[in-house]
Amino acid sequence: MDGSYPVTERNKVRRLHERGRYDRESVHAILDAAMLCHIAYVIEGQPYCTPTVFWREGDHLYWHGSAASRMLRAQKGGVPVCLTVTHLDSLVLARCGFNHSVDYRSAMCFGTAHIVDDPAHKARALDAMVNRLYPQRAATLRESTAQELKATTVIGMAIEQASGKIRTKGVADEEEDYALPIYAARIPVVQVLGTPEPCPRLPAGVPLPEGLRGFVAGRRLDEVMTENAG
Amino acid sequence: MDGSYPVTERNKVRRLHERGRYDRESVHAILDAAMLCHIAYVIEGQPYCTPTVFWREGDHLYWHGSAASRMLRAQKGGVPVCLTVTHLDSLVLARCGFNHSVDYRSAMCFGTAHIVDDPAHKARALDAMVNRLYPQRAATLRESTAQELKATTVIGMAIEQASGKIRTKGVADEEEDYALPIYAARIPVVQVLGTPEPCPRLPAGVPLPEGLRGFVAGRRLDEVMTENAG
Repeated sequence: MDGSYPVTERNKVRRLHERGRYDRESVHAILDAAMLCHIAYVIEGQPYCTPTVFWREGDHLYWHGSAASRMLRAQKGGVPVCLTVTHLDSLVLARCGFNHSVDYRSAMCFGTAHIVDDPAHKARALDAMVNRLYPQRAATLRESTAQELKATTVIGMAIEQASGKIRTKGVADEEEDYALPIYAARIPVVQVLGTPEPCPRLPAGVPLPEGLRGFVAGRRLDEVMTENAG
Repeated sequence: MDGSYPVTERNKVRRLHERGRYDRESVHAILDAAMLCHIAYVIEGQPYCTPTVFWREGDHLYWHGSAASRMLRAQKGGVPVCLTVTHLDSLVLARCGFNHSVDYRSAMCFGTAHIVDDPAHKARALDAMVNRLYPQRAATLRESTAQELKATTVIGMAIEQASGKIRTKGVADEEEDYALPIYAARIPVVQVLGTPEPCPRLPAGVPLPEGLRGFVAGRRLDEVMTENAG
Protein backbone atom coordinates (compact mmCIF):
# COMPACT_ATOMS: atom_id res chain seq x y z
CA MET A 1 0.00 0.00 0.00
CA ASP A 2 2.99 2.30 -0.11
CA GLY A 3 3.98 4.52 -2.96
CA SER A 4 2.05 6.72 -5.31
CA TYR A 5 -0.58 6.16 -7.96
CA PRO A 6 0.69 6.55 -11.53
CA VAL A 7 0.00 9.99 -12.99
CA THR A 8 -1.27 10.42 -16.53
CA GLU A 9 -3.50 12.92 -18.30
CA ARG A 10 -6.49 11.19 -16.66
CA ASN A 11 -5.70 11.93 -13.04
CA LYS A 12 -3.26 14.84 -13.25
CA VAL A 13 -4.51 17.77 -11.16
CA ARG A 14 -4.76 20.64 -13.65
CA ARG A 15 -6.23 23.64 -11.91
CA LEU A 16 -4.10 24.78 -8.93
CA HIS A 17 -1.88 21.74 -9.33
CA GLU A 18 0.13 22.66 -6.22
CA ARG A 19 -2.84 21.26 -4.28
CA GLY A 20 -2.44 17.80 -5.84
CA ARG A 21 -1.53 14.60 -4.02
CA TYR A 22 -0.83 11.21 -5.62
CA ASP A 23 0.60 9.20 -2.73
CA ARG A 24 -1.53 6.39 -1.36
CA GLU A 25 -1.31 7.64 2.22
CA SER A 26 -2.87 11.01 1.36
CA VAL A 27 -5.51 9.61 -1.00
CA HIS A 28 -6.52 6.82 1.39
CA ALA A 29 -6.79 9.25 4.31
CA ILE A 30 -9.29 11.34 2.35
CA LEU A 31 -11.27 8.25 1.34
CA ASP A 32 -11.26 6.69 4.81
CA ALA A 33 -12.63 9.84 6.45
CA ALA A 34 -15.79 9.59 4.33
CA MET A 35 -18.97 7.55 4.39
CA LEU A 36 -20.43 8.86 1.12
CA CYS A 37 -18.92 9.24 -2.31
CA HIS A 38 -20.22 10.32 -5.71
CA ILE A 39 -19.71 8.01 -8.67
CA ALA A 40 -19.67 9.13 -12.30
CA TYR A 41 -20.44 6.65 -15.06
CA VAL A 42 -21.68 6.84 -18.63
CA ILE A 43 -24.66 5.22 -20.30
CA GLU A 44 -24.87 5.80 -24.05
CA GLY A 45 -22.87 9.00 -23.87
CA GLN A 46 -24.89 10.44 -20.97
CA PRO A 47 -22.96 10.98 -17.73
CA TYR A 48 -24.60 10.15 -14.40
CA CYS A 49 -23.45 11.19 -10.94
CA THR A 50 -24.77 9.02 -8.11
CA PRO A 51 -24.17 9.40 -4.36
CA THR A 52 -23.60 6.21 -2.43
CA VAL A 53 -22.03 4.68 0.67
CA PHE A 54 -18.67 3.10 -0.17
CA TRP A 55 -15.77 1.42 1.57
CA ARG A 56 -12.11 0.70 0.86
CA GLU A 57 -10.07 -2.47 1.27
CA GLY A 58 -6.48 -1.86 0.32
CA ASP A 59 -6.48 -0.64 -3.27
CA HIS A 60 -10.06 -1.79 -3.88
CA LEU A 61 -13.23 0.25 -3.47
CA TYR A 62 -16.68 -1.25 -3.02
CA TRP A 63 -20.21 0.09 -3.06
CA HIS A 64 -23.62 -1.40 -3.59
CA GLY A 65 -26.95 -0.89 -5.24
CA SER A 66 -26.50 1.64 -7.99
CA ALA A 67 -28.43 2.62 -11.08
CA ALA A 68 -25.34 1.44 -12.94
CA SER A 69 -26.07 -2.15 -11.93
CA ARG A 70 -28.18 -2.97 -14.97
CA MET A 71 -25.53 -1.56 -17.25
CA LEU A 72 -22.82 -3.45 -15.40
CA ARG A 73 -24.70 -6.72 -15.81
CA ALA A 74 -24.72 -6.13 -19.54
CA GLN A 75 -21.00 -5.27 -19.67
CA LYS A 76 -19.10 -8.24 -18.37
CA GLY A 77 -15.77 -6.53 -18.97
CA GLY A 78 -16.72 -3.77 -16.54
CA VAL A 79 -17.28 -0.07 -17.13
CA PRO A 80 -15.06 2.96 -16.47
CA VAL A 81 -16.06 4.99 -13.43
CA CYS A 82 -14.72 7.88 -11.41
CA LEU A 83 -15.39 7.74 -7.67
CA THR A 84 -14.99 11.05 -5.86
CA VAL A 85 -14.98 11.95 -2.16
CA THR A 86 -15.15 15.53 -0.90
CA HIS A 87 -14.86 17.03 2.57
CA LEU A 88 -15.84 20.68 2.89
CA ASP A 89 -13.66 22.16 5.65
CA SER A 90 -14.31 25.90 5.53
CA LEU A 91 -15.80 28.82 3.65
CA VAL A 92 -13.22 31.41 2.66
CA LEU A 93 -14.41 35.01 2.35
CA ALA A 94 -11.74 37.12 0.69
CA ARG A 95 -11.43 40.81 -0.18
CA CYS A 96 -12.25 40.29 -3.87
CA GLY A 97 -14.55 37.88 -5.65
CA PHE A 98 -11.68 36.03 -7.33
CA ASN A 99 -10.09 34.95 -4.03
CA HIS A 100 -13.29 33.61 -2.48
CA SER A 101 -12.81 29.91 -2.02
CA VAL A 102 -13.38 26.95 0.26
CA ASP A 103 -10.92 24.79 2.15
CA TYR A 104 -11.50 21.16 1.26
CA ARG A 105 -10.05 17.68 0.88
CA SER A 106 -11.11 15.68 -2.16
CA ALA A 107 -10.03 12.50 -3.89
CA MET A 108 -10.85 11.22 -7.38
CA CYS A 109 -10.34 7.53 -8.08
CA PHE A 110 -10.39 5.99 -11.55
CA GLY A 111 -11.02 2.37 -12.31
CA THR A 112 -13.15 -0.26 -13.98
CA ALA A 113 -16.27 -1.21 -12.02
CA HIS A 114 -17.42 -4.81 -11.99
CA ILE A 115 -20.15 -6.70 -10.18
CA VAL A 116 -19.02 -8.94 -7.32
CA ASP A 117 -20.94 -12.07 -8.32
CA ASP A 118 -19.21 -14.75 -6.29
CA PRO A 119 -21.59 -15.40 -3.35
CA ALA A 120 -18.80 -15.88 -0.77
CA HIS A 121 -16.96 -12.75 -1.87
CA LYS A 122 -20.24 -10.82 -1.85
CA ALA A 123 -21.26 -11.94 1.64
CA ARG A 124 -17.78 -11.18 2.95
CA ALA A 125 -17.83 -7.73 1.31
CA LEU A 126 -21.18 -6.86 2.88
CA ASP A 127 -19.98 -7.89 6.33
CA ALA A 128 -16.83 -5.86 5.73
CA MET A 129 -18.95 -2.82 4.89
CA VAL A 130 -20.97 -3.04 8.10
CA ASN A 131 -17.84 -3.60 10.19
CA ARG A 132 -15.93 -0.82 8.50
CA LEU A 133 -18.69 1.66 9.34
CA TYR A 134 -19.68 0.16 12.70
CA PRO A 135 -16.86 -1.88 14.31
CA GLN A 136 -17.70 -5.51 15.17
CA ARG A 137 -21.36 -5.04 14.22
CA ALA A 138 -21.84 -7.65 11.45
CA ALA A 139 -21.67 -10.66 13.80
CA THR A 140 -24.34 -9.14 16.07
CA LEU A 141 -26.96 -8.82 13.32
CA ARG A 142 -29.74 -11.11 12.18
CA GLU A 143 -28.15 -13.15 9.38
CA SER A 144 -28.91 -12.10 5.80
CA THR A 145 -31.45 -14.21 3.93
CA ALA A 146 -30.73 -15.66 0.51
CA GLN A 147 -33.33 -13.26 -0.89
CA GLU A 148 -31.66 -10.24 0.72
CA LEU A 149 -28.28 -11.25 -0.67
CA LYS A 150 -29.84 -11.75 -4.11
CA ALA A 151 -31.48 -8.31 -3.95
CA THR A 152 -28.16 -6.63 -3.16
CA THR A 153 -25.68 -5.78 -5.87
CA VAL A 154 -22.10 -5.31 -4.73
CA ILE A 155 -19.87 -3.38 -7.11
CA GLY A 156 -16.10 -3.22 -6.82
CA MET A 157 -13.17 -1.65 -8.56
CA ALA A 158 -9.41 -1.65 -8.24
CA ILE A 159 -8.07 1.88 -8.01
CA GLU A 160 -6.04 2.20 -11.21
CA GLN A 161 -5.27 5.85 -10.70
CA ALA A 162 -6.18 8.46 -8.15
CA SER A 163 -5.48 12.00 -7.14
CA GLY A 164 -6.14 13.95 -3.98
CA LYS A 165 -6.59 17.69 -3.78
CA ILE A 166 -6.29 19.65 -0.56
CA ARG A 167 -6.74 23.33 0.25
CA THR A 168 -6.14 24.40 3.83
CA LYS A 169 -4.82 27.94 3.62
CA GLY A 170 -7.96 29.93 4.51
CA VAL A 171 -7.92 33.58 3.44
CA ALA A 172 -5.25 34.30 0.81
CA ASP A 173 -5.60 37.74 -0.69
CA GLU A 174 -3.43 39.82 -2.98
CA GLU A 175 -0.78 41.58 -0.90
CA GLU A 176 -2.08 45.04 -1.84
CA ASP A 177 -5.64 44.12 -0.80
CA TYR A 178 -4.98 43.32 2.86
CA ALA A 179 -5.09 46.98 3.86
CA LEU A 180 -8.55 47.52 2.37
CA PRO A 181 -11.43 48.02 4.85
CA ILE A 182 -13.19 44.85 3.68
CA TYR A 183 -14.25 42.08 6.04
CA ALA A 184 -12.50 38.76 5.32
CA ALA A 185 -12.72 35.52 7.24
CA ARG A 186 -12.46 31.78 7.27
CA ILE A 187 -15.62 30.06 8.53
CA PRO A 188 -14.99 26.43 9.50
CA VAL A 189 -17.52 23.78 8.45
CA VAL A 190 -17.76 20.40 10.14
CA GLN A 191 -20.05 17.42 9.70
CA VAL A 192 -20.96 16.24 13.19
CA LEU A 193 -23.09 13.56 14.78
CA GLY A 194 -26.27 14.40 16.64
CA THR A 195 -27.59 12.50 19.65
CA PRO A 196 -28.15 8.84 18.67
CA GLU A 197 -31.86 7.94 18.72
CA PRO A 198 -32.27 4.28 19.71
CA CYS A 199 -35.16 2.63 17.83
CA PRO A 200 -38.37 3.18 19.84
CA ARG A 201 -39.14 -0.51 19.42
CA LEU A 202 -35.86 -1.67 20.98
CA PRO A 203 -36.63 -4.40 23.56
CA ALA A 204 -35.76 -3.41 27.13
CA GLY A 205 -32.21 -4.19 28.20
CA VAL A 206 -30.49 -4.16 24.80
CA PRO A 207 -27.21 -2.35 25.52
CA LEU A 208 -25.29 0.03 23.29
CA PRO A 209 -22.67 -2.19 21.63
CA GLU A 210 -19.01 -1.53 22.44
CA GLY A 211 -18.21 -0.84 18.76
CA LEU A 212 -20.62 2.09 18.65
CA ARG A 213 -19.15 4.00 21.60
CA GLY A 214 -17.40 6.34 19.17
CA PHE A 215 -20.74 7.61 17.83
CA VAL A 216 -21.23 10.38 20.34
CA ALA A 217 -23.17 13.61 19.83
CA GLY A 218 -20.94 16.45 18.66
CA ARG A 219 -18.15 14.27 17.25
CA ARG A 220 -16.95 14.87 13.69
CA LEU A 221 -18.12 12.19 11.28
CA ASP A 222 -14.80 12.28 9.41
CA GLU A 223 -12.90 11.58 12.63
CA VAL A 224 -15.19 8.69 13.61
CA MET A 225 -14.91 7.23 10.09
CA THR A 226 -11.11 7.51 10.16
CA GLU A 227 -10.98 5.88 13.59
CA ASN A 228 -13.23 3.03 12.46
CA ALA A 229 -11.19 2.45 9.30
CA GLY A 230 -8.49 1.23 11.68
CA MET B 1 -40.94 27.87 -11.73
CA ASP B 2 -43.97 25.80 -10.88
CA GLY B 3 -44.67 22.32 -12.04
CA SER B 4 -42.52 19.27 -12.45
CA TYR B 5 -39.56 18.32 -14.59
CA PRO B 6 -40.36 15.92 -17.43
CA VAL B 7 -39.64 12.30 -16.55
CA THR B 8 -37.94 9.98 -19.02
CA GLU B 9 -35.60 7.02 -18.76
CA ARG B 10 -32.80 9.48 -18.03
CA ASN B 11 -34.07 10.91 -14.76
CA LYS B 12 -36.57 8.30 -13.60
CA VAL B 13 -35.74 7.13 -10.07
CA ARG B 14 -35.31 3.37 -10.43
CA ARG B 15 -34.20 1.96 -7.11
CA LEU B 16 -36.72 2.65 -4.33
CA HIS B 17 -38.77 4.83 -6.68
CA GLU B 18 -41.16 5.80 -3.88
CA ARG B 19 -38.40 8.13 -2.71
CA GLY B 20 -38.45 10.06 -6.02
CA ARG B 21 -39.47 13.71 -6.47
CA TYR B 22 -39.81 15.53 -9.78
CA ASP B 23 -41.52 18.76 -8.77
CA ARG B 24 -39.46 21.95 -8.97
CA GLU B 25 -40.21 22.93 -5.38
CA SER B 26 -38.69 19.74 -3.95
CA VAL B 27 -35.71 19.66 -6.31
CA HIS B 28 -34.91 23.35 -5.85
CA ALA B 29 -35.13 23.03 -2.05
CA ILE B 30 -32.47 20.30 -2.14
CA LEU B 31 -30.25 22.35 -4.46
CA ASP B 32 -30.66 25.60 -2.53
CA ALA B 33 -29.65 23.99 0.76
CA ALA B 34 -26.23 23.13 -0.68
CA MET B 35 -23.01 24.96 -1.39
CA LEU B 36 -21.19 22.10 -3.11
CA CYS B 37 -22.25 19.76 -5.88
CA HIS B 38 -20.56 16.99 -7.84
CA ILE B 39 -20.59 17.19 -11.63
CA ALA B 40 -20.21 14.19 -13.93
CA TYR B 41 -19.00 14.68 -17.48
CA VAL B 42 -17.32 12.55 -20.12
CA ILE B 43 -14.07 13.04 -22.00
CA GLU B 44 -13.40 10.45 -24.69
CA GLY B 45 -15.55 7.85 -22.98
CA GLN B 46 -13.97 8.39 -19.55
CA PRO B 47 -16.33 9.72 -16.85
CA TYR B 48 -15.08 12.37 -14.42
CA CYS B 49 -16.72 13.42 -11.17
CA THR B 50 -15.70 16.87 -9.93
CA PRO B 51 -16.80 18.69 -6.76
CA THR B 52 -17.47 22.39 -7.08
CA VAL B 53 -19.36 25.34 -5.65
CA PHE B 54 -22.53 26.02 -7.67
CA TRP B 55 -25.57 28.27 -7.58
CA ARG B 56 -29.06 28.30 -9.06
CA GLU B 57 -31.00 31.06 -10.77
CA GLY B 58 -34.47 29.85 -11.66
CA ASP B 59 -34.04 26.82 -13.89
CA HIS B 60 -30.37 27.56 -14.58
CA LEU B 61 -27.37 26.24 -12.67
CA TYR B 62 -23.95 27.87 -12.72
CA TRP B 63 -20.50 26.88 -11.51
CA HIS B 64 -16.99 27.94 -12.36
CA GLY B 65 -13.51 26.74 -12.97
CA SER B 66 -13.72 23.07 -13.82
CA ALA B 67 -11.47 20.57 -15.52
CA ALA B 68 -14.23 20.36 -18.12
CA SER B 69 -13.47 23.90 -19.24
CA ARG B 70 -10.97 22.92 -21.90
CA MET B 71 -13.36 20.35 -23.28
CA LEU B 72 -16.19 22.87 -23.22
CA ARG B 73 -14.14 25.39 -25.17
CA ALA B 74 -13.66 22.79 -27.87
CA GLN B 75 -17.36 21.86 -27.98
CA LYS B 76 -19.27 24.98 -28.81
CA GLY B 77 -22.58 23.11 -28.77
CA GLY B 78 -22.07 22.26 -25.12
CA VAL B 79 -21.59 18.91 -23.41
CA PRO B 80 -24.00 16.70 -21.44
CA VAL B 81 -23.48 16.80 -17.69
CA CYS B 82 -25.18 15.53 -14.57
CA LEU B 83 -24.98 17.80 -11.51
CA THR B 84 -25.74 16.10 -8.21
CA VAL B 85 -26.26 17.47 -4.72
CA THR B 86 -26.41 15.27 -1.62
CA HIS B 87 -27.21 16.01 2.02
CA LEU B 88 -26.45 13.22 4.50
CA ASP B 89 -29.04 13.49 7.30
CA SER B 90 -28.53 10.38 9.41
CA LEU B 91 -26.92 6.98 9.75
CA VAL B 92 -29.45 4.17 10.08
CA LEU B 93 -28.39 1.10 12.04
CA ALA B 94 -30.90 -1.70 11.55
CA ARG B 95 -31.22 -5.24 12.90
CA CYS B 96 -29.92 -6.88 9.72
CA GLY B 97 -27.31 -5.80 7.18
CA PHE B 98 -29.87 -5.36 4.41
CA ASN B 99 -31.83 -2.66 6.24
CA HIS B 100 -28.82 -0.57 7.17
CA SER B 101 -29.20 2.73 5.37
CA VAL B 102 -28.81 6.47 5.60
CA ASP B 103 -31.40 9.23 5.58
CA TYR B 104 -30.55 11.73 2.87
CA ARG B 105 -31.78 14.29 0.38
CA SER B 106 -30.25 14.25 -3.09
CA ALA B 107 -30.98 15.83 -6.44
CA MET B 108 -29.65 14.93 -9.88
CA CYS B 109 -29.92 17.55 -12.63
CA PHE B 110 -29.36 16.83 -16.31
CA GLY B 111 -28.51 19.41 -18.93
CA THR B 112 -26.06 20.69 -21.50
CA ALA B 113 -23.21 22.70 -20.06
CA HIS B 114 -21.92 25.73 -21.94
CA ILE B 115 -19.37 28.42 -21.18
CA VAL B 116 -20.75 31.83 -20.27
CA ASP B 117 -18.59 33.91 -22.61
CA ASP B 118 -20.46 37.21 -22.74
CA PRO B 119 -18.45 39.50 -20.42
CA ALA B 120 -21.51 41.26 -18.96
CA HIS B 121 -23.33 37.99 -18.31
CA LYS B 122 -20.17 36.53 -16.78
CA ALA B 123 -19.56 39.49 -14.45
CA ARG B 124 -23.22 39.48 -13.41
CA ALA B 125 -23.11 35.72 -12.76
CA LEU B 126 -20.01 36.03 -10.55
CA ASP B 127 -21.62 38.80 -8.50
CA ALA B 128 -24.74 36.66 -8.24
CA MET B 129 -22.66 33.77 -6.92
CA VAL B 130 -21.07 35.87 -4.18
CA ASN B 131 -24.42 37.40 -3.20
CA ARG B 132 -26.20 34.08 -3.25
CA LEU B 133 -23.69 32.63 -0.78
CA TYR B 134 -23.07 35.81 1.23
CA PRO B 135 -25.98 38.30 0.98
CA GLN B 136 -25.10 41.79 -0.28
CA ARG B 137 -21.38 41.00 -0.32
CA ALA B 138 -20.44 41.59 -3.98
CA ALA B 139 -20.79 45.38 -3.80
CA THR B 140 -18.50 45.56 -0.76
CA LEU B 141 -15.55 43.82 -2.46
CA ARG B 142 -12.54 45.17 -4.31
CA GLU B 143 -13.65 45.17 -7.95
CA SER B 144 -12.48 42.31 -10.16
CA THR B 145 -9.65 43.08 -12.54
CA ALA B 146 -9.87 42.28 -16.25
CA GLN B 147 -7.22 39.62 -15.66
CA GLU B 148 -9.20 37.98 -12.85
CA LEU B 149 -12.34 37.88 -15.00
CA LYS B 150 -10.33 36.40 -17.86
CA ALA B 151 -8.86 33.73 -15.57
CA THR B 152 -12.33 32.68 -14.40
CA THR B 153 -14.49 30.34 -16.44
CA VAL B 154 -18.21 30.45 -15.72
CA ILE B 155 -20.18 27.43 -16.83
CA GLY B 156 -23.96 27.32 -17.00
CA MET B 157 -26.70 24.91 -17.89
CA ALA B 158 -30.45 24.95 -18.12
CA ILE B 159 -31.96 22.11 -16.09
CA GLU B 160 -33.57 19.95 -18.76
CA GLN B 161 -34.56 17.22 -16.37
CA ALA B 162 -34.08 16.56 -12.69
CA SER B 163 -35.05 14.20 -9.94
CA GLY B 164 -34.89 14.44 -6.19
CA LYS B 165 -34.61 11.49 -3.83
CA ILE B 166 -35.40 11.73 -0.15
CA ARG B 167 -35.21 9.18 2.67
CA THR B 168 -36.33 10.32 6.11
CA LYS B 169 -37.77 7.24 7.79
CA GLY B 170 -34.87 6.25 10.05
CA VAL B 171 -34.89 2.62 11.25
CA ALA B 172 -37.22 0.43 9.18
CA ASP B 173 -36.81 -3.26 9.98
CA GLU B 174 -38.74 -6.36 9.02
CA GLU B 175 -41.72 -6.73 11.34
CA GLU B 176 -40.46 -10.02 12.75
CA ASP B 177 -37.02 -8.52 13.53
CA TYR B 178 -38.12 -5.81 15.96
CA ALA B 179 -38.29 -8.23 18.89
CA LEU B 180 -34.67 -9.38 18.42
CA PRO B 181 -32.17 -8.27 21.08
CA ILE B 182 -30.14 -6.26 18.55
CA TYR B 183 -29.28 -2.60 19.04
CA ALA B 184 -30.80 -0.38 16.33
CA ALA B 185 -30.71 3.39 16.08
CA ARG B 186 -30.81 6.47 13.92
CA ILE B 187 -27.78 8.73 14.38
CA PRO B 188 -28.38 12.24 13.02
CA VAL B 189 -25.65 13.91 10.98
CA VAL B 190 -25.49 17.66 10.46
CA GLN B 191 -23.04 19.95 8.70
CA VAL B 192 -22.53 22.95 10.96
CA LEU B 193 -20.53 26.14 10.99
CA GLY B 194 -17.65 26.63 13.40
CA THR B 195 -16.66 29.95 14.90
CA PRO B 196 -15.81 32.42 12.10
CA GLU B 197 -12.12 33.34 12.13
CA PRO B 198 -11.68 36.92 10.89
CA CYS B 199 -8.53 37.33 8.81
CA PRO B 200 -5.63 38.17 11.19
CA ARG B 201 -4.65 40.98 8.82
CA LEU B 202 -8.06 42.69 8.99
CA PRO B 203 -7.50 46.44 9.63
CA ALA B 204 -8.86 47.65 12.98
CA GLY B 205 -12.48 48.74 12.95
CA VAL B 206 -13.75 46.71 9.98
CA PRO B 207 -17.16 45.51 11.16
CA LEU B 208 -18.90 42.20 10.45
CA PRO B 209 -21.19 42.98 7.49
CA GLU B 210 -24.94 42.74 8.07
CA GLY B 211 -25.29 40.05 5.38
CA LEU B 212 -23.00 37.67 7.29
CA ARG B 213 -24.91 37.72 10.57
CA GLY B 214 -26.44 34.34 9.70
CA PHE B 215 -23.00 32.67 9.78
CA VAL B 216 -22.95 31.86 13.47
CA ALA B 217 -21.09 28.97 15.13
CA GLY B 218 -23.28 25.89 15.51
CA ARG B 219 -25.77 26.76 12.77
CA ARG B 220 -26.52 24.19 10.08
CA LEU B 221 -24.94 25.06 6.74
CA ASP B 222 -28.00 23.78 4.83
CA GLU B 223 -30.25 26.13 6.79
CA VAL B 224 -27.99 29.13 6.24
CA MET B 225 -27.76 28.30 2.52
CA THR B 226 -31.55 27.98 2.24
CA GLU B 227 -32.04 31.26 4.07
CA ASN B 228 -29.56 33.05 1.82
CA ALA B 229 -31.15 31.64 -1.34
CA GLY B 230 -34.09 33.86 -0.48
